[in-house]
Amino acid sequence: MDERYSMYASFEGRVLIIGYGSVARAALLLILRHIAVSPGRVTVLTRNPIDAALQKELGVQTITATVTPENYQQILDDQLGEGDILLHLTAGISSYDLIAYCLSHGICYMDASLEEWPGVVHGEKGDYRARCDYYNRMRVRSLDSNDASRRSTAFIANGANPGLVSYFLKAGLLDIARDTGVPANPHTREEWAALAEMLQVKVVHVSERDTQRSVTSRTKGVFRNTWSPEGLYGEAVLPAEVGWGTHEKELPKDAKLHDTGTGSAIGILRPGCTVQARSWVPLTGPLLGMVISHNETLAFADYYTVRNDAGEVVYRPTCHYVYYPADDALASLREVVASNFERPRETELLIDDIVSDGGTDELGVLIAGHAKNAYWIGTSLTIEEARKVGMQVNATSLQVAAGILAGMVWIIEHPHEGIIEADDVDHVRALAIAAPYLGTIKKVYTDWTPLAHLDTSIVPRGDRDLDDPWQFKNIYVP
Amino acid sequence: MDERYSMYASFEGRVLIIGYGSVARAALLLILRHIAVSPGRVTVLTRNPIDAALQKELGVQTITATVTPENYQQILDDQLGEGDILLHLTAGISSYDLIAYCLSHGICYMDASLEEWPGVVHGEKGDYRARCDYYNRMRVRSLDSNDASRRSTAFIANGANPGLVSYFLKAGLLDIARDTGVPANPHTREEWAALAEMLQVKVVHVSERDTQRSVTSRTKGVFRNTWSPEGLYGEAVLPAEVGWGTHEKELPKDAKLHDTGTGSAIGILRPGCTVQARSWVPLTGPLLGMVISHNETLAFADYYTVRNDAGEVVYRPTCHYVYYPADDALASLREVVASNFERPRETELLIDDIVSDGGTDELGVLIAGHAKNAYWIGTSLTIEEARKVGMQVNATSLQVAAGILAGMVWIIEHPHEGIIEADDVDHVRALAIAAPYLGTIKKVYTDWTPLAHLDTSIVPRGDRDLDDPWQFKNIYVP
Repeated sequence: MDERYSMYASFEGRVLIIGYGSVARAALLLILRHIAVSPGRVTVLTRNPIDAALQKELGVQTITATVTPENYQQILDDQLGEGDILLHLTAGISSYDLIAYCLSHGICYMDASLEEWPGVVHGEKGDYRARCDYYNRMRVRSLDSNDASRRSTAFIANGANPGLVSYFLKAGLLDIARDTGVPANPHTREEWAALAEMLQVKVVHVSERDTQRSVTSRTKGVFRNTWSPEGLYGEAVLPAEVGWGTHEKELPKDAKLHDTGTGSAIGILRPGCTVQARSWVPLTGPLLGMVISHNETLAFADYYTVRNDAGEVVYRPTCHYVYYPADDALASLREVVASNFERPRETELLIDDIVSDGGTDELGVLIAGHAKNAYWIGTSLTIEEARKVGMQVNATSLQVAAGILAGMVWIIEHPHEGIIEADDVDHVRALAIAAPYLGTIKKVYTDWTPLAHLDTSIVPRGDRDLDDPWQFKNIYVP
Repeated sequence: MDERYSMYASFEGRVLIIGYGSVARAALLLILRHIAVSPGRVTVLTRNPIDAALQKELGVQTITATVTPENYQQILDDQLGEGDILLHLTAGISSYDLIAYCLSHGICYMDASLEEWPGVVHGEKGDYRARCDYYNRMRVRSLDSNDASRRSTAFIANGANPGLVSYFLKAGLLDIARDTGVPANPHTREEWAALAEMLQVKVVHVSERDTQRSVTSRTKGVFRNTWSPEGLYGEAVLPAEVGWGTHEKELPKDAKLHDTGTGSAIGILRPGCTVQARSWVPLTGPLLGMVISHNETLAFADYYTVRNDAGEVVYRPTCHYVYYPADDALASLREVVASNFERPRETELLIDDIVSDGGTDELGVLIAGHAKNAYWIGTSLTIEEARKVGMQVNATSLQVAAGILAGMVWIIEHPHEGIIEADDVDHVRALAIAAPYLGTIKKVYTDWTPLAHLDTSIVPRGDRDLDDPWQFKNIYVP
């Protein structure tokens, strides 16, 4: 135990971490710093053997195994029991199956995004909508209706986004309430949704710009990213998804509603990496990013829905991701689109090769349409700040790890809650735990709107809604 | 006269060059090398005074003036007379007005793209299609119907593209004919079009990848390009335009036919910088680029149209540009889209600051759909090769200048031809003149198609035409 670091919780059980990519690496460093857990009780499971130096450096156990639909139960039987924690931080392993196992064995669970076995999609067969994350999330959440679920907590999709952005959104809503003189003391989901409605929030963007870059030039055909390249590829080829606000007048072309579930989101039926939208971050101002499907925006849409007594939806903001990734990642995605979405054969994680020049991952929520127009709140973390935590850490992985740390503390403090998303937990404590690893927390109002500086002669008539800047048709770039 | 360089023509008259951007600079260097003209008879007109060193270096005259609709006639009266040459190489001055003046005064004329006075569009008022270059080109070509036009030659849109690519297309068609055993000896437009039809060419892409980059990082808000940033901005916010082939089964969404003129092209009614398509270049293989409106693709569509005796169109290839500009230019355009197409306030030309690392402008035509699938022919010129010509020259400007040089020679040899486009002139001589400045001339067959490696589970059903890879719906990325 290092006296320099605050201890937020202590844990006697075992922790199994599946995966040891950049996020798991950073998360493990933070967990060992801030949670009183014996390193010998922590096991890292990876597909390929990892450096023995890791055991030496951190004192954790390591095992090597390829987790499959056939063997995951045996592996979990061997490694975990009631009261233990499973931290799932790799692509290509079904969150649903692991959660179902954990809930029925009294094991707590967390992941940073909902994953599936390779090639598995949900929803109706032959319907392109089946690829929407909407169905995967709905299916996972359905596990909660099982009484047995209360035996443990499964905290799903809690990294940076999804994860931290939920905490920022709540903090932002309270800031806007304060600054516009709206009394606010929300505790329940219904009260939070009512607050968003009262503030007349029309739009919530998760907006992100990542300016980290490598000292080396990317080689053609190599898919680079500042976090799992496979993970980015996987989500970028899913249909774009948008939590669909009640103020919207017009469905975009190629968009479809869903027939089942809460109906809170639409799918834009093209791979998200080809769907672009305008947003804003403090670092660059206006931003063109990709509308990549992400759990948090589906979760926001459900969490911030207000229904009347008849159960009809009367309020919901439009919620989606606008992601301008690292330049190398964007160029890699251009190659993917050019090559008909073929899976990249070679990948590179940008990590210790990132230039020390202030490269920043700036990630937050743009909350817009209210009396003060738009408010951005989030984390702006430089590579230099991230590297203080250790080697093989970058700004992106540290932001995700900070969310995971906050979630781990919450799980330890609340081990019997069933399925949980970040919107369900106390954002104040979560941000307090995460903040030391988030660089500058920026909080800024902007007068930017998606109609700013519009030269109407350059866009076709009818392409924009000049009466309401926060219509999706002004944000979306068809 | 420098003995090292071939002299292709000699000219006794005066030459007025309007503009002295990177292209004009490189063109002037080549003209003085390869055309026997007295430098003292060459005048460079610029809006801002240019370095006195230029006069000293090259011995040319310089004048400073802002050319406007009100004063252009007076300026031309002062500078030029019958038998002289006007070389128009700047944005924001109407090609139409200058051509009309030149044709009626017996002055030869050339430009590297059709320009207009700021803010002027043609076509029907209030119709977004009016912004299409189609109307500007049609209007300029209509000048040819005037008998007086035969008093001089106006060679329009003859740089690299438009320009060189017309010569490459003809050379490519002959190569394909040779390699597929099709007898070919075309001379007239009708014979060239018939050859393309006989070869079953469905698609002609002008495909370009520019990998030149600066030693310095781009500052947010600064629009960078390897040629006129203002020029790229100007064409990138015009509607995308596509010469529309007879094999196409389905108009893309947002596309409109034209009601007047030859009807050979469609407009995709969104700014071209938001319209993306797949193509292929040798340097990178598959390529995602922008379908930016360009004169050459409209010209190809007309030139390679075959009509039956009843005047009905029976054959035309689909022709368009697929442009992946320098990374900094692409990032600049992302800012333009994010900012609602606002004109950039600050620009930077990448020129002497370009890294000497093999950065290349690779530009050519992909001729596809024939018996040998697809053939790419074009120029692949590195920054190092370009710099051998002089300071303030890059790969892009030298390619354009090489086309201009070939065109200048043609004008001097053919001074009474009226309106001419690059498709109308002898490609063999033009390429022979340009080739020494084009680096490697690549000629390569590829088995790539826009359906290559397609994962059909990732795209919505109906999004592609699996029966014909060369349908625009496979190429276009909606």
